[in-house]
Amino acid sequence: MTLAVRYTAARTLDTAPALDAPPGPGEVELAPAYVGICGTDLHIFHGDMDARVRMPAVLGHEMSGRVVRVGPGVEGWRPGDAVTVMPLRWDDTCPACRAGHRHVCQHLDFIGIDSPGAMQQRWTVPASTLVRLPDSLPLDRAALVEPTAVAVHDVGRAKVGAGEKAVVVGGGPVGVLIALVARATGAEVRVVEPSAHRRRLAEELGLTVWNPSEDEIPTLVRKWTGDAGADVAFEVSGAAGGVQTAVKVLGVRGRLCLVAIHPRPREIDLHRFFWRELTLVGARLYDRADFEKAVTLVTDGTIPAERLISKVVPLTQAPAAFEALEGGGDVMKILVDCADNTSGTQGATV
Amino acid sequence: MTLAVRYTAARTLDTAPALDAPPGPGEVELAPAYVGICGTDLHIFHGDMDARVRMPAVLGHEMSGRVVRVGPGVEGWRPGDAVTVMPLRWDDTCPACRAGHRHVCQHLDFIGIDSPGAMQQRWTVPASTLVRLPDSLPLDRAALVEPTAVAVHDVGRAKVGAGEKAVVVGGGPVGVLIALVARATGAEVRVVEPSAHRRRLAEELGLTVWNPSEDEIPTLVRKWTGDAGADVAFEVSGAAGGVQTAVKVLGVRGRLCLVAIHPRPREIDLHRFFWRELTLVGARLYDRADFEKAVTLVTDGTIPAERLISKVVPLTQAPAAFEALEGGGDVMKILVDCADNTSGTQGATV
Repeated sequence: MTLAVRYTAARTLDTAPALDAPPGPGEVELAPAYVGICGTDLHIFHGDMDARVRMPAVLGHEMSGRVVRVGPGVEGWRPGDAVTVMPLRWDDTCPACRAGHRHVCQHLDFIGIDSPGAMQQRWTVPASTLVRLPDSLPLDRAALVEPTAVAVHDVGRAKVGAGEKAVVVGGGPVGVLIALVARATGAEVRVVEPSAHRRRLAEELGLTVWNPSEDEIPTLVRKWTGDAGADVAFEVSGAAGGVQTAVKVLGVRGRLCLVAIHPRPREIDLHRFFWRELTLVGARLYDRADFEKAVTLVTDGTIPAERLISKVVPLTQAPAAFEALEGGGDVMKILVDCADNTSGTQGATV
Repeated sequence: MTLAVRYTAARTLDTAPALDAPPGPGEVELAPAYVGICGTDLHIFHGDMDARVRMPAVLGHEMSGRVVRVGPGVEGWRPGDAVTVMPLRWDDTCPACRAGHRHVCQHLDFIGIDSPGAMQQRWTVPASTLVRLPDSLPLDRAALVEPTAVAVHDVGRAKVGAGEKAVVVGGGPVGVLIALVARATGAEVRVVEPSAHRRRLAEELGLTVWNPSEDEIPTLVRKWTGDAGADVAFEVSGAAGGVQTAVKVLGVRGRLCLVAIHPRPREIDLHRFFWRELTLVGARLYDRADFEKAVTLVTDGTIPAERLISKVVPLTQAPAAFEALEGGGDVMKILVDCADNTSGTQGATV
């Protein structure tokens, strides 16, 4: 019997037998290896997305694994192939798709939110969502490909160029990944993060990190940039104050890339957008090119994925891990080991 | 004796003798012919910009006129040449200038706000600010070149393409000019304007205009675009509700060009920016290429400038014209005829 972790009600996860139907035409059955717990998964766990999620819901969309079975008509994939999944299904007919922006399809099925996700021992997905992983890439690290693809997309949307100065507001997993990708693009980067634990981790990765509780960030940026202001800012904090900071640090023609989700409207200093001819650009998800670039960056070590993994827990311990994460805590990325049915904790803190 | 219109205190203009010093090195003395009254001039008149304006201040930056005298070292200009002025002086040393964005110089001198403007019978400016006018262009129409350059800049910042659908929120002079320039670029345009008088004028120019007091604009846009949403929106209203509308009408990857001045922060639906990967781009002033394009558009009749001129008043009546404008009223553009010293009204309502 194979198991699935299911969200059944606010703050409630259970484990139950996974579906075990053979893959249909164009589908592939996978054995997920590792699945990362994402901020969105936590939002669902909190009950914030009950209007969207169909319960019981299998969560998880940051994954790595191997092909188990291929359905009729599937070519190019064999059992045992190491893969990750770009968890998007679009309708190919809406105006967004027709305009070539399928990743923001107006009827997007985000697999792991709108349909069953990866936090189970067998998972059937369309073959078109598979992204091949190189044999040299350990599967635990490969679970970081999806959030890295987010970062690649964000850096691309912000059009970060070599030699530019970028401020990343928010030093959680996505913020750190953006900082690393921007740095790899040749930008000079500063991360703004109030949590001491996250600051320390980002510093260990060679990033320069500022504490907004201690320093006046716009003043630091003015000094850093010789009064020019930053070329790019990423708003990854989700906080009203983070938006303010991101707007304040930008120089003439600066670009603010909006990454975080802000469920409520935020007050924005539009006069500054006018006066400095700033640009605000929303960034959501990724496309296949972003995913493939992310595979490269995780494989070649540009993204030191192993250092972002705080902990690996067995599948059966996923409910407890969600509860622990809900209380905040000093973690970056927690992975669920889907192959591990035991009740102990594997690997402990890495 | 030559006269100048001067702002001396909130809601107070007088006329006084103009300075009559010979132009210095690199300078040119002009005889302004027509000067348009701009929204910014009205803000100054209201007293809203007293912190920035040095009183007594000569206002006016939308102008046409002729060269009277050229200062030492000035080449290429002769008395009698018809000109308009791009009223910007930059320092060429600040980070914005060094990055090639001189029109948003961090120490910009906007002539007509930060230094004496055109609403006088003699006006000395740097020769570098002159833009040549063709002999075929009547000087009253030429006073519309400056606001047309604003519109050209805005349409350029929004990267409007042929066949795109654009919504212009606000049908005052700049809104109508943006609509006309966008239309000339090949876009389909809708203007949103609550004033019946302005709607009528815009309709007479062949524009389709919607009344936000009567119709639910996002619904109209959805019908118009087959549920796709607009490609571009221009926020020219300056109102909080105008910003909301501009955000709501945009389709996936839509661009919102922020033209109006919003002195106070505005609430923005950032989630929509994220979800649809929208872009907000601030647009301020213009550069020389915009000005030269504007000369062409006004000269070839793409911009029917004569139909945007509501009234021409003699210089001596400028104070009364400001007072009349302050009460709102059914006008688009009022020009001050600087050559006219009489106390009557020339041309009446055009």
